[in-house]
Amino acid sequence: MKLGSLKSKESLDGVLCVVSRDLKTAVKVPQIAANLREAMEKWSENQAALEKVYSDLNEGKAAGSFAVNEQDFHSALPRTWLFADGSAFIYHIKLVRMARKAPLPETLTTVPLMYQGECGQFLAPTEEIPQRDVAHGTDFEGEVGIITDFVPMGVTPDQALKHIKLFVLINDVSLRGLIPEELAGGFGFFQSKPASALSPFAVTADELGEAYKEGRVHLPLNVDYNGKFFGKANAGAMHFHFGQLIAHAAKTRNLAAGTVIGSGTVSNDDHSTGSSCLAEVRMIETIETGEIKTPFMKAGDTVEMKMFNEKGENVFGRIFQKVKAVQ
Amino acid sequence: MKLGSLKSKESLDGVLCVVSRDLKTAVKVPQIAANLREAMEKWSENQAALEKVYSDLNEGKAAGSFAVNEQDFHSALPRTWLFADGSAFIYHIKLVRMARKAPLPETLTTVPLMYQGECGQFLAPTEEIPQRDVAHGTDFEGEVGIITDFVPMGVTPDQALKHIKLFVLINDVSLRGLIPEELAGGFGFFQSKPASALSPFAVTADELGEAYKEGRVHLPLNVDYNGKFFGKANAGAMHFHFGQLIAHAAKTRNLAAGTVIGSGTVSNDDHSTGSSCLAEVRMIETIETGEIKTPFMKAGDTVEMKMFNEKGENVFGRIFQKVKAVQ
Repeated sequence: MKLGSLKSKESLDGVLCVVSRDLKTAVKVPQIAANLREAMEKWSENQAALEKVYSDLNEGKAAGSFAVNEQDFHSALPRTWLFADGSAFIYHIKLVRMARKAPLPETLTTVPLMYQGECGQFLAPTEEIPQRDVAHGTDFEGEVGIITDFVPMGVTPDQALKHIKLFVLINDVSLRGLIPEELAGGFGFFQSKPASALSPFAVTADELGEAYKEGRVHLPLNVDYNGKFFGKANAGAMHFHFGQLIAHAAKTRNLAAGTVIGSGTVSNDDHSTGSSCLAEVRMIETIETGEIKTPFMKAGDTVEMKMFNEKGENVFGRIFQKVKAVQ
Repeated sequence: MKLGSLKSKESLDGVLCVVSRDLKTAVKVPQIAANLREAMEKWSENQAALEKVYSDLNEGKAAGSFAVNEQDFHSALPRTWLFADGSAFIYHIKLVRMARKAPLPETLTTVPLMYQGECGQFLAPTEEIPQRDVAHGTDFEGEVGIITDFVPMGVTPDQALKHIKLFVLINDVSLRGLIPEELAGGFGFFQSKPASALSPFAVTADELGEAYKEGRVHLPLNVDYNGKFFGKANAGAMHFHFGQLIAHAAKTRNLAAGTVIGSGTVSNDDHSTGSSCLAEVRMIETIETGEIKTPFMKAGDTVEMKMFNEKGENVFGRIFQKVKAVQ
């Protein structure tokens, strides 16, 4: 099943829609839930009704369906209670720490790194990324994310996997220029992690077929930068799987229904797959040539993220964002 | 004006109530807004109607009013989009860093420390604090907080002061035993900052009278621990005022209506005022006697927080929480 949130003047949560498998048609489902955030709170009650609409829609039988224009859709979940962003690709951690000459944590392979990110107002998937100062070093980070129902504190990684209800893509916007000073303060990221964007559509595990196994999505994340190929790293290379990330987040708190957990920047040891953020490319340039050639984003630069299933079909729709200078 | 959120089986947001100045009576106001979170989104539209009910209630003229039982109230704002917790009392920072032998940030007096805390489900003000492991080192932190309407990115500290709509008390629960390892990872607090509680009632600035000036609440925060006096440090001693904290939070993002900004643990240089967290007392014991006598909280320990205005009236109601061992 695929779900989206139509932009709405009435609610910052948007309007919940069921979206066809081919992403061509959609139908509003206010009779089931006003928005996806509320639908997540009663997922077990809502799922069957949503699946029925999805089945009808795919067969061309759903009343009130309309043609999808992705510009009309917000991030699949426009706002929520918790965005816990992990960093489950060890190679990415090694590269970015090398870049800022920071030591690797002793618990690199045993305890996931995780911070709490902005989620009160995700950017829309085609919304411009505001840049107040080019010195902030705007970067994108391509990630896979999951959305949970309510998760009780102390859940095990295995139990946690059962709380994954939906998958999304995430462009975790990062301000590299602000990170060193912010982390030096000891409290972690805040200003350096502004609003991110999710893909327009969130999908259930069955839409990923065989590609979803062992708590990981084994598909490449296609990233284009300024209209050119930038990366196709496989998201299956997560060191920690999503169940482990959820269990980490829930060690000392319950997780509200609608919690988004991010994988961290998708990254593979094999450089031929490209990258999912500029910071990695800059570090690889430094290692290989002693010189950084790729600047961070400036006004007008664009990033596009998509993921295709094994049949070559677009799973989540498209994140396509341009940087815009603002005051 | 004073507002509260009555617990409700229908909504995790509770039901918005106007509460009398003496905290003795309240009235539900669903005709104005379903809950405080939604009321904050249209504060300029709702404020006058809420003030009218408040005036009637204080005069004993509000239809449908009922006697307040604080146990029936949730945290004033039961859940929201962002809890940005500052650390604006420099003396507190000095003591806790001394305690964990961590260096002081170079920007101690120029850039506020701030992290993003759990806010998808605040504990109720009289809800037990769950403790999975006594080794987690459960501590309370008494804070003053503010609630904003929508704040645009890039707001100045002066402009930011105009976005303060409500004040609350906060018990920022901290797990001291988890902090050193978590901060060593470099990503800041996550597991070490579980769900906190707000006071049952949120109040507008006029309820603080002369005590609110220059972006600070100049009143003592009364903290009792296990039924005995623990602290009465004055919250006016913030180095950074709330406008500066809001501006810091909004440097690279818009802040959603309903954002809660915490002052950090209220702390005064003068030890005779006592403390607002156990970590400070433990550090003072170390400095004065070379030995820590006060343990962190264990099951059954209780903390109470209240603030009285210059007339001796309870402003926010009472936070009263007991630690409970859980699996």
